[in-house]
Amino acid sequence: MLRTQVGIVGAGPAGLLLSLMLQRRGIDSVIIEARDREAIEATIRAGILEQSTVDLMAELGVADRLRREGVVHEGTILRFGGRNHRIDFKELTGGRVATLYPQHEVLKDLIAARLAQGGRILFGTKVNEVADVGTAAPVIRFAGADGAAGELRCDVVIGADGSYGACRPAIPADRRRDFLRIYPFGWFGILCEAPVSSEELIYARHERGFALISSRTPEVQRMYFQCDPNDSVENWSEDRIWAELQARVAGEDGFRLKQGRIFQKNIVPMRSFVCEPMQYGRLFLAGDAAHAVPPTGAKGLNLAASDVWHLDRALGAFFADGSTALMEGYSAAALRRVWRAQHFSWWMTSMLHRFPDASEFDDRRQLAELELVTGTMPAATSLAQTYVGMPFG
Amino acid sequence: MLRTQVGIVGAGPAGLLLSLMLQRRGIDSVIIEARDREAIEATIRAGILEQSTVDLMAELGVADRLRREGVVHEGTILRFGGRNHRIDFKELTGGRVATLYPQHEVLKDLIAARLAQGGRILFGTKVNEVADVGTAAPVIRFAGADGAAGELRCDVVIGADGSYGACRPAIPADRRRDFLRIYPFGWFGILCEAPVSSEELIYARHERGFALISSRTPEVQRMYFQCDPNDSVENWSEDRIWAELQARVAGEDGFRLKQGRIFQKNIVPMRSFVCEPMQYGRLFLAGDAAHAVPPTGAKGLNLAASDVWHLDRALGAFFADGSTALMEGYSAAALRRVWRAQHFSWWMTSMLHRFPDASEFDDRRQLAELELVTGTMPAATSLAQTYVGMPFG
Repeated sequence: MLRTQVGIVGAGPAGLLLSLMLQRRGIDSVIIEARDREAIEATIRAGILEQSTVDLMAELGVADRLRREGVVHEGTILRFGGRNHRIDFKELTGGRVATLYPQHEVLKDLIAARLAQGGRILFGTKVNEVADVGTAAPVIRFAGADGAAGELRCDVVIGADGSYGACRPAIPADRRRDFLRIYPFGWFGILCEAPVSSEELIYARHERGFALISSRTPEVQRMYFQCDPNDSVENWSEDRIWAELQARVAGEDGFRLKQGRIFQKNIVPMRSFVCEPMQYGRLFLAGDAAHAVPPTGAKGLNLAASDVWHLDRALGAFFADGSTALMEGYSAAALRRVWRAQHFSWWMTSMLHRFPDASEFDDRRQLAELELVTGTMPAATSLAQTYVGMPFG
Repeated sequence: MLRTQVGIVGAGPAGLLLSLMLQRRGIDSVIIEARDREAIEATIRAGILEQSTVDLMAELGVADRLRREGVVHEGTILRFGGRNHRIDFKELTGGRVATLYPQHEVLKDLIAARLAQGGRILFGTKVNEVADVGTAAPVIRFAGADGAAGELRCDVVIGADGSYGACRPAIPADRRRDFLRIYPFGWFGILCEAPVSSEELIYARHERGFALISSRTPEVQRMYFQCDPNDSVENWSEDRIWAELQARVAGEDGFRLKQGRIFQKNIVPMRSFVCEPMQYGRLFLAGDAAHAVPPTGAKGLNLAASDVWHLDRALGAFFADGSTALMEGYSAAALRRVWRAQHFSWWMTSMLHRFPDASEFDDRRQLAELELVTGTMPAATSLAQTYVGMPFG
């Protein structure tokens, strides 16, 4: 049997950041993670970091590579009517920016730092049960990498195990409410070997549907286009994909995407989800275990960082002198930012996508909203401020 | 047969303002209006005037009574979660305000001023046909107050005859596009004899639906609550109406409406409508003849003023030296503000009403948006700026 103060389920951004933050306070934690380290580090994921997320990583001493390899985005492009319209984050927010640094790169840095501290991360370890969270002595039962059953006893359990993990179901169904919205479209995503097509992200609104032009590295590009969520990647040849992407960014300025070999295709479903409250007894949910956003607002990873910012303070107070006020206030405090991000992600999605039931009135209204957002200072500032993110807390 | 330079159909805000503006340029106009003067002046209508509309009336010398009797609103209240949240127009927009001055009072002042100039307004005169608008000599055929048929020949026809007038249909169906959105709710409106309940308008979002607390005079109040558009005023006793209104504004602050005898009840349908283009040949549409907004954004009368601001310049150029560039650009120029107002009216409506198909996610998202709008400066400024209105042009 293992024993720690804080048992963390999930070595994603939420779990890893929290373990590093708790270490600063001298609070012991153990992370249990179902996947192995190689799989986690090899799964290419998106990553737009808010200013506060970057600042938090810098504080934790894990921002060296991020500073070298991350790409600072001082603005972003909303493309509609065949033209680019830039939102200048830096100017509109008094110097705050977004940073492109893929999530799997973040995870590599966090895992390396945590292991270098001597932190315990049990990879390849599957949680079977999170029990006794209504008591002062919860327990996490798992099957280790070698298949042997084990137990982790702790004072507090952090459920940072994603949308489909074991922790959220450990809150009794009658003690939580799930808020869900499924969008009537998905994103068809590709990774390709091609040069960068645009220095800044392009969010394109087109009659044929939304497209997002993003980048992973100078040599690897990530692009998406809105699709039927029930479509299959098998229906899309490389030629058809490029024709569709080029059509969605075509315009009077003659803009063209730089094409290259496509080496990954996938269809991402789009949904919004929140579980309330984010706490039950000694179990605290963080990140995707508690909420999911459509990727349009680039908020997923940043919400995980915000959640654990609150948890760090709450657990710090609890282990310092047993005070539970911040722990009890955790859910309400975290949910304020969660719902703001939910609104933002829904709004960006609604403004840029074509809905199957949209009327011609809706099309014009959508264009008028894009004109407002790109043509008037307060509306542009509101978008910029939420995109780069307000300070945590 | 009558003859004028500009034949105006409709003695509403658009038609009357334009006739006064054209008079300044020495351009002759005749207004034809189906209703009689008494009926127009006795129909109690809402009226929130943008800063630019007030400024235009002042320029035209018809703002004396508006200045005395109009009520300046330096802000407005968004009420949700049982509390008031104020948007400070004056502070957020550098001094611009909204003015409450009912539309029928505006019309009284405009009619009196136009008649005092010797302007011709043919009341009780029904337009049967607007013809030859594709030529340089359009004609308006009408039946006069005495029933006798007549003709008005002119160089230009202004269709300012509202949503159901004869002018819009004079544009061939294949030369225009109609954009329409019907909302799945209406507004149940009352007029009552009661003191003012709130110095500033209250836009209330409540689980039971939207309510608007407005005022006509210190003694007469106007209130609305969201209802089934197919409901009947017969189903609502005075007691039931007050119970519903009080429930929708109830809150932790103990706010109560001041009640009084209800002397008018009606149900207002809610729709958004735009006709594109707003011109065909020598026929130019203005105001409700070209577009309708749900009243939530308080934009109807102000869009009429914006339309004729453009028309005045266009007609001024045309009659000065025959140049048609501004006339040809009228529709595109006016539609920019029309679509911005359409978006704003839709947005205010969406943010404050309960939709029949709204999920619990939508409820929370709506509250998060209201928190954003009332809690962050850029979003509040964006609302304030559009509410008080940008300068015309």
